[in-house]
Amino acid sequence: MSASSTSGTVRMPFAELQTLLQAILEQHGCSEPVAAALAFNCASAQRDGAHSHGVFRIPGYVSTLASGWVDGKAVPAVTDVASGYVRVDAGGGFAQPALAAARPLLLAKVRSAGIAVLAIHNSHHFAALWPDVEPFADEGLVALSVVNSMTCVVPHGARQPLFGTNPIAFAAPCAEHDPIVFDMATSAMAHGDIQIAAREGRQLPLGMGVDAKGQPTSDPQAILDGGALLPFGDHKGSALSMMVELLAAALTGGNFSWEFDWSAHPGAKTPWTGQLLIVIDPSKAEGERFAQRSRHLLEQMQAAGLSRMPGERRYRERATAEREGVALSETELQGLRQLLG
Amino acid sequence: MSASSTSGTVRMPFAELQTLLQAILEQHGCSEPVAAALAFNCASAQRDGAHSHGVFRIPGYVSTLASGWVDGKAVPAVTDVASGYVRVDAGGGFAQPALAAARPLLLAKVRSAGIAVLAIHNSHHFAALWPDVEPFADEGLVALSVVNSMTCVVPHGARQPLFGTNPIAFAAPCAEHDPIVFDMATSAMAHGDIQIAAREGRQLPLGMGVDAKGQPTSDPQAILDGGALLPFGDHKGSALSMMVELLAAALTGGNFSWEFDWSAHPGAKTPWTGQLLIVIDPSKAEGERFAQRSRHLLEQMQAAGLSRMPGERRYRERATAEREGVALSETELQGLRQLLG
Repeated sequence: MSASSTSGTVRMPFAELQTLLQAILEQHGCSEPVAAALAFNCASAQRDGAHSHGVFRIPGYVSTLASGWVDGKAVPAVTDVASGYVRVDAGGGFAQPALAAARPLLLAKVRSAGIAVLAIHNSHHFAALWPDVEPFADEGLVALSVVNSMTCVVPHGARQPLFGTNPIAFAAPCAEHDPIVFDMATSAMAHGDIQIAAREGRQLPLGMGVDAKGQPTSDPQAILDGGALLPFGDHKGSALSMMVELLAAALTGGNFSWEFDWSAHPGAKTPWTGQLLIVIDPSKAEGERFAQRSRHLLEQMQAAGLSRMPGERRYRERATAEREGVALSETELQGLRQLLG
Repeated sequence: MSASSTSGTVRMPFAELQTLLQAILEQHGCSEPVAAALAFNCASAQRDGAHSHGVFRIPGYVSTLASGWVDGKAVPAVTDVASGYVRVDAGGGFAQPALAAARPLLLAKVRSAGIAVLAIHNSHHFAALWPDVEPFADEGLVALSVVNSMTCVVPHGARQPLFGTNPIAFAAPCAEHDPIVFDMATSAMAHGDIQIAAREGRQLPLGMGVDAKGQPTSDPQAILDGGALLPFGDHKGSALSMMVELLAAALTGGNFSWEFDWSAHPGAKTPWTGQLLIVIDPSKAEGERFAQRSRHLLEQMQAAGLSRMPGERRYRERATAEREGVALSETELQGLRQLLG
């Protein structure tokens, strides 16, 4: 292990972290392709400083696999529905290998039809969403994805939680620049960030969530212990969260965020829902011009005084990790090694 | 004229209002099909109580036409780009007749490919966006549309305005119910609502906009007089507004919200940009099930305590208008009659 340590932080090469995570996931019940897809996703999040979806997630994957809630060896069944429509039954497994299995057909359709939709159902998504869309932008395509999750968000104007954190991710190419990418929970905070705040004993600003009695709270633990999150941006974020339920669940044939019951699977952490991706080929009408226009937008945003573009922090962390290795805490590394047994 | 008056409010049949608006628009430089499309859109907004996009807009249409900024007689040029891709050059005219011209081809593609995109450029959109998507839901389809507008929103973290109010509209069918529809500016308030508040001398809550010096203000006139709006939901709404610029302008070949110069056209009010629509046929994979699932979602939202669904106020106003006629103020009606000359 080439890991180097400074004041509790370890740095290791990306490939090494990926190999370690893959070995853990295989040991705990994933097939090789499933473990590879999840390990790449999780190591990428850690590399990019997206810690709520980095190695922090591995114990959750392991306890979920142990609970029998998800099939770590599921083989996705891809259906060619129409000239712009691909459907995947993830077989009760993870969404990332389902996307990987459908990707070649999806890309062929996008290149031909100019737009295509990938509808994944019977799937578990426990990861950041941007790794699902960014690779399309690397190929010059525009991608939008939504995934619903598990009931923990009170719709604006309602009394009880119903929606999941229901993120929306978007990626677009940008000439001579990293793609423009964002990935936002439609809740006021991502669930992983609430968990991290609770773990670190940090209070939250008001407006993020409510306690078990439906009262506003700044205590992340109160949100986790029977409380709930609020949508971002009041009724607008709430409407977007509703849209995610419709697109990721109703349209794909997946479960809504409140429709699965994992009570017989203690340790299960992964929402069993659906995911939708819409991918557009801008070259169909605009040739090479789209990425240049995207770059022009970026420059104008900087000229307007924007100091940080969406995704920019990730690219900066990524560049550091490529030079110095991916950072994780010694405690996290010890935890991973223990999971390897 | 069958208009009936109660305490300053007039009610008239929808068809009569539509005919009146169409006559005004034709008199001020629109061709018959353009005037028909805009009159239907504007009368629909008035009927549904969406007053910032109802007859309130007519003087703006008229002054814009008089300024020579928009071609009221433009004939849209529809291009069949690919099996899922339709492009329209609106010819410097309005977006609604461009959508109407492309709609049959778009629908044929959606029914065949399962998804299709309509990219409109060289277009002016001065209306509510929900009338563009709701009719697709009436046909069992799911529709998403975005349009960029004119620089009046400061990106989150920036110092100067750049984005337009850049609305996002969504529509989905719902079994034995009106479609689920929303239409939201990605700014904290719609520009039309700021104008109405200024006209009525109402103060706004803080967080909607800034004055000409970039300072927070609750005065709508200060926002209009060299100030700017803020995005809804901080960095998340701002990222969505950026996405709208990329989809509605960069992808379509239209202008970004800051790229047009109407200074040589005093009276011009309509942003000269682009619009994107994505339409999906849920029956491709889910048969008739989608609308039932959509209905189930609606019922669960009501069970969670939500008292008003997105779009519900519009449907209620619409039902009243169908019984009693479309409401407008006597002042508005007088103004319309004066425009008819």
